[in-house]
Amino acid sequence: MSAGAVHPSPESDLPGFGDVVAALGRLSPRLVRTPVASAPGFDALCDRRVYLKCENLQHGGAFKYRGALNALLLRPACASHQPVATHSSGNHGTALALAARALGLHCHVVIPQDASAAKLAALQAAGASVRRCAPGLAAREAALADWLAESPAHLVHPFDDARVIAGQGTAALELLCERPDLDVVAVPVGGGGLLGGTALAARGAKPGCRVVGVEPALADDTWRSFASGRREGVAGSPATIADGLRGSIGARNFELLLRHVDEVLVVSERSIVAAMRLVLEHFRMLVEPSSAVPIAALLEGRLGRPGERVGVVVSGGNVDLAGCPFLAGERLAATAPAPGGARAATGRGA
Amino acid sequence: MSAGAVHPSPESDLPGFGDVVAALGRLSPRLVRTPVASAPGFDALCDRRVYLKCENLQHGGAFKYRGALNALLLRPACASHQPVATHSSGNHGTALALAARALGLHCHVVIPQDASAAKLAALQAAGASVRRCAPGLAAREAALADWLAESPAHLVHPFDDARVIAGQGTAALELLCERPDLDVVAVPVGGGGLLGGTALAARGAKPGCRVVGVEPALADDTWRSFASGRREGVAGSPATIADGLRGSIGARNFELLLRHVDEVLVVSERSIVAAMRLVLEHFRMLVEPSSAVPIAALLEGRLGRPGERVGVVVSGGNVDLAGCPFLAGERLAATAPAPGGARAATGRGA
Repeated sequence: MSAGAVHPSPESDLPGFGDVVAALGRLSPRLVRTPVASAPGFDALCDRRVYLKCENLQHGGAFKYRGALNALLLRPACASHQPVATHSSGNHGTALALAARALGLHCHVVIPQDASAAKLAALQAAGASVRRCAPGLAAREAALADWLAESPAHLVHPFDDARVIAGQGTAALELLCERPDLDVVAVPVGGGGLLGGTALAARGAKPGCRVVGVEPALADDTWRSFASGRREGVAGSPATIADGLRGSIGARNFELLLRHVDEVLVVSERSIVAAMRLVLEHFRMLVEPSSAVPIAALLEGRLGRPGERVGVVVSGGNVDLAGCPFLAGERLAATAPAPGGARAATGRGA
Repeated sequence: MSAGAVHPSPESDLPGFGDVVAALGRLSPRLVRTPVASAPGFDALCDRRVYLKCENLQHGGAFKYRGALNALLLRPACASHQPVATHSSGNHGTALALAARALGLHCHVVIPQDASAAKLAALQAAGASVRRCAPGLAAREAALADWLAESPAHLVHPFDDARVIAGQGTAALELLCERPDLDVVAVPVGGGGLLGGTALAARGAKPGCRVVGVEPALADDTWRSFASGRREGVAGSPATIADGLRGSIGARNFELLLRHVDEVLVVSERSIVAAMRLVLEHFRMLVEPSSAVPIAALLEGRLGRPGERVGVVVSGGNVDLAGCPFLAGERLAATAPAPGGARAATGRGA
């Protein structure tokens, strides 16, 4: 399969706000209704009112379940019993495998060798058939094309698919329904499915709310594309800790970026790690590096203006504890549970 | 004020299931609708299906906001403009201060010197007037009585108050509405407000669901009370890491314990820490030691039976990062945000 088959002409089926609304109706009964968290101490630190939409608590630990399930619920009749397939840095693959399992379908996932160990483990636990490939989008697409040639399956692209983009937009739509007073909504950008869907949701639900994408400076293709007006890519697999954001923006999401997004920011690796640490401190949640990217921009005072209400979609929580820059491996290992340490009183009191 | 004034005869106003239902209607619009989290890998580890009601994501980072707000919404007309007051190991105080602030009231809180630093900081950030006292219930009650004598206020006891107990029960009621198939619901026990409210909710909403309280072996007053049928206390302030569970069960909650609770378990300090670590790994949430107490019993295979569906109310997330047994202080300190590390592209692409 050529890259062209994975990326058909985007103009033919760009999703719209109506697709996001329809997706929310379709998905709602099957989603975790994730909370919107805020913390006064964190607000003081940022000099803004910050609302985190906790998709790290979604099925599969990431927003990706929304787009994957939406795509499967909208699959054509001819694919109704076919296996499904994708390539993924981890979260989309796990989401697709979980959605497929819920619908009784098999799932094939190509995952690059530089994927996080936590994500590979989650993918396998979700029941996917897995093949590893070299890092980078080209290798991922080539490996998937080979696999599809051997074993036909219904492809659900991780970000360049109208059904996926509309599904991802439901997170921001829920956030805006709960916090209709937001001035800004921000998301991390890799392939741009979350940004594209979020932009559709915000433009439709609250046109005055600004939409901002944030990416690591080491994988700044969307920043460059936004500045130049031409879709630019990253070379190979950038060395950013934000393992979910190493890809380049997809064709459909680039169109949505130019039409609906107000600003793109980039942040340093150091800021990403600092943001992870501060989210743990203030919200008691361990978020994955990709999720910390917009929060890093917030902590640097670059996202939104003082006093504004800023919503951020926390994209996922699938982080390797052993590789986390601020968790100490040696002390973690010393805390295995001690069986038999409990007592029970099972009779009712006399 | 004598201890008798804080603990009037419990028989006079034990709450019932109807009070929990009414509280949920009253509180719902003002609460975070906290999610129920599950993780397949954690289920495999426990050999049970585990559902965590994430009250660590509630306002103030703990379930305590439910009971505190319910008490204030039900305060008598004569106290409608009076300050409110309590003693607390931290979470109830913060919850009461936040609820008071939402209603335009001042709040006075006595907190013991062995309270967690995170909880003291949260209490102060919530706008409470704070006085420190020696550890232990007797010192807390004495300090509060002195303060009330100087400055009259409406007392909201942290656990021995029918309005508070009914409010705390709303967490389990939400959990059972979302997961009506639970075989067991378990909560940590300190003063027993959460256990009392949970028992009412479970008996009313699903009579077949067993109710289990779990406490640290170092503060096993409820275990002893349940076994003997007489309300027993702890001496002083036990040295458990579970700082929210150092108190003794209240009179009303002891009555509810004997009537409605199926089992009380105790767990070791080592198991509590191991449980915190595993919750972080599988759910990416940092829960406070008190919350990890029932999860420790689960990991030891003592809570519920293999294959059963077990719900746990995760009581709170207010943990001191610096004092956490598995977070490394020196590496945390090295990750301050780097201002000015961001770039922005704010023009739309040409």
